[in-house]
Parts: sequence; structure tokens; C-alpha cells
Amino acid sequence: MTNESLPVLAILGGTGDLGTGLARRWAQAGYRVIIGSRTQEKAEAAAADLREIMAERGVGDIGVEAMENMAAASAAEIVTLTVPFSHQASTLELVKPALQGKVLIDVTVPLVPPKVGRVQLPEQGSAGQIAQNILGEEVHVVSAFQNVAAHHLQEGHGLACDVLVCGNSKDARAAVIELVEAAGMRGFHAGLINNAAAAEALTSVLININRQYKCHAGITISGLD
Amino acid sequence: MTNESLPVLAILGGTGDLGTGLARRWAQAGYRVIIGSRTQEKAEAAAADLREIMAERGVGDIGVEAMENMAAASAAEIVTLTVPFSHQASTLELVKPALQGKVLIDVTVPLVPPKVGRVQLPEQGSAGQIAQNILGEEVHVVSAFQNVAAHHLQEGHGLACDVLVCGNSKDARAAVIELVEAAGMRGFHAGLINNAAAAEALTSVLININRQYKCHAGITISGLD
Repeated sequence: MTNESLPVLAILGGTGDLGTGLARRWAQAGYRVIIGSRTQEKAEAAAADLREIMAERGVGDIGVEAMENMAAASAAEIVTLTVPFSHQASTLELVKPALQGKVLIDVTVPLVPPKVGRVQLPEQGSAGQIAQNILGEEVHVVSAFQNVAAHHLQEGHGLACDVLVCGNSKDARAAVIELVEAAGMRGFHAGLINNAAAAEALTSVLININRQYKCHAGITISGLD
Repeated sequence: MTNESLPVLAILGGTGDLGTGLARRWAQAGYRVIIGSRTQEKAEAAAADLREIMAERGVGDIGVEAMENMAAASAAEIVTLTVPFSHQASTLELVKPALQGKVLIDVTVPLVPPKVGRVQLPEQGSAGQIAQNILGEEVHVVSAFQNVAAHHLQEGHGLACDVLVCGNSKDARAAVIELVEAAGMRGFHAGLINNAAAAEALTSVLININRQYKCHAGITISGLD
């Protein structure tokens, strides 16, 4: 059941594996989740799929809705962006007016196909920094979830995958770390927004490891006392 | 005791915590290790310290020698560079003639003091790529060990810290992965040399986590079957 005291979440580009994986976990944790897409139809289809899977698993009515990206961004308090790098800038330009004063969670990894196993960071340093540059300082951009395999997110249980959380606002990072935990993972304050470069570059490394070991690798932080 | 069938190793800038930590672990694994420094005196002092520590621990005669950087690079088959970023280029220019056809393990992290917790990758993409550019294609540059806390390396036991191994030659990466294992850690093929950007950037993230948790953090790869 949806917990009305929790912030309303939107996931833009929420019809992909990563977006629906996050939507499922947050909805199960009691959040009201809006799946955003470029068309109402695609958003509805993803939301319907999700409700069906949840029903099969015996999870009761979950608070998942469907909207176009701009409406989703307007209706939510915390907005997550899970689109391919090639659509990051255009999507952010579109929804920027709806994001003022809000937290935008950027999950973009600046992969340059076809060589996705090769680190090719953008001139600006990171996709996270690109988002911050586009949105301006009135939007609290926080990057996270770049190293989580969608494959594992679709599973029901806890994940042995830590999340590096970067952003210029400590409060915004803390709000995102709560969402990381609600999704069954550990989140770590990892520095200012441009430190997203580390997590973004790591995704290409994990792609190499996945090919080598036929797995869906992630990272965990070791050495904590 | 030194195993004559193993490659001879040199550690340039081997008088710091990371260099002596690696020297100790490789010497204990039976490798002949040459500690290189800018002066013979500094190298001798580090080697003497290391022999003393090993004697205190009841480890027998270990094969640690001391030389100036150029002599060390000439005498070794695999050369490791553990100098600060500000000395990387000058040290490599100096020893370049001695490295032709060999493996150079670059441990350089391009930190820019005083903001060492901020990812500030160089224009060339990574310190590993800088090393490859300076040394040319006849030297097999492999980057590794950027995320290992020297603190833990100085301890005697196995380390819960994985090592990302990047380089353009798969055989050279495999040789370095053997050395990672000899030092008590797991190594992973992580792609071409410029993928070193991931491990280098991650060091600044780990510095943030160390400050926050008062620890010496590293990473481990999760999700392997």
C-alpha cells in the first residue's frame, strides 16, 4: 500500500529494465511511483506490466501510475532519469521547468556505442555534470544507480550491490540514499556531482567483467569497520 | 626464499607506503624485488626497513634489493611505478629506454591537491593513458592497484579488495593479475588502458568514503556466479 507520508516519485524513461526495476522496488516499499515516457501509451503499457507482475507475486495494489514525461516530472517530488545518454539532454531540456527546487536523480551512463566496454567520458567530465549544467543550480542533481545490473533489480530480494551517490547538495544526497535503501541496497556519499565520473566509467569496466565471467557484476565497498 | 623461476620485479618510487607494501607481499611470495628510488640512499633505507620488519615477523631472508630508479628498471622484467602524479611523467621519461618490451605497471592516481576527494581526470583521459603515450606501444602499460589502501597492504593477511587491471595487451594484463594474486588479492581484466580512468576516479570517491566512515575503503566485485 502507498504511504502518503513518503515523497512522490517519477521515473522518466521508466519503461526500460532499469526504470521498471526501480519502480517495482520503490512501489513495494510504499512509494507512489509515476512511470514517465515520451507517450502516454508506452507509460501505460509499462505500468500495466508492472501491476501484473506484482499481482502474480501476490503483492497487493501498488501505487504505480503512468504519464507523459513532463506531466510525470510535474506531479513528482523526486524525479529519476533513466534514458539512454543520447536522450539525456533533450529529455532534461523538456522537463526543466517542472524540476525547479526538486531533486533529479540522474542514472545516465555516457556509453558511446558500439564500444560500450570502453570508458569514453564526455568533455564536461561526466553525464551527471552535464545534467547539472543543463538544469542549473536550482535543481539538486544527484547521480546514482549507474552500477546496478537491471537483471538483479528485477529480482525480489536484497542486492549485493552498493550505490555511489554524488551531488553538490548533501541533503539531496541523503534523500537519495534513503531511496537506495528503500530499493534494498546500500548508498554512499561519494562527493560532488562531477564525481559521477567514477561510477559512470565503472559501468564500462563492469561490462568487460560481465563478458569475461558471463555474469551481471556490481561493486561493493569493502574495508568499512 | 626467492624463486628464480619468477620474473624479477622493480618498484620505482618504492619507498612510499604503497610501494613498500607491494614489495613486502611480493618478496614474501618468493619474488626478487628491487626497490627503486631517486637516490641509492633512499632506496637502501626503504629496503633495510623492510628487511627489519620481515625479520621481526620471523620471515627468513627476503630478496629485496635497492637501486636508483634507472638501474632498477634495467634490472627488472616487470616494473611498477608508485610515484605521485606530479612525478609520473618525469620518472617515465627517465626510465623509458630501460622499459622497451617490458610490462610497466602504472599505479598513478591523478589526484590534484588539495581537492583530492574531487575527480579531476587529466585531458588525456587517465594517468594510464598518459603513461602509454609517453612510453609508446613497445612498452606494455598495465594500470592496477589504484584502489588498494596502503594501510591494508601493510597488514599480513588476505585483502578484501579487488584490483581492476587495464591495459592494451591481454597477456600483459594476465601477467599483472598473477602479481595481484601473489599479493593476496583478486584481479580482473577491466579493458584497455584508458579504462584506468574508472579506477583512478574511484580513488577520489573512496577518499570521500574514508572521511565519512573513518576507514580505509576499497571495492570488491559482486554478482559473480
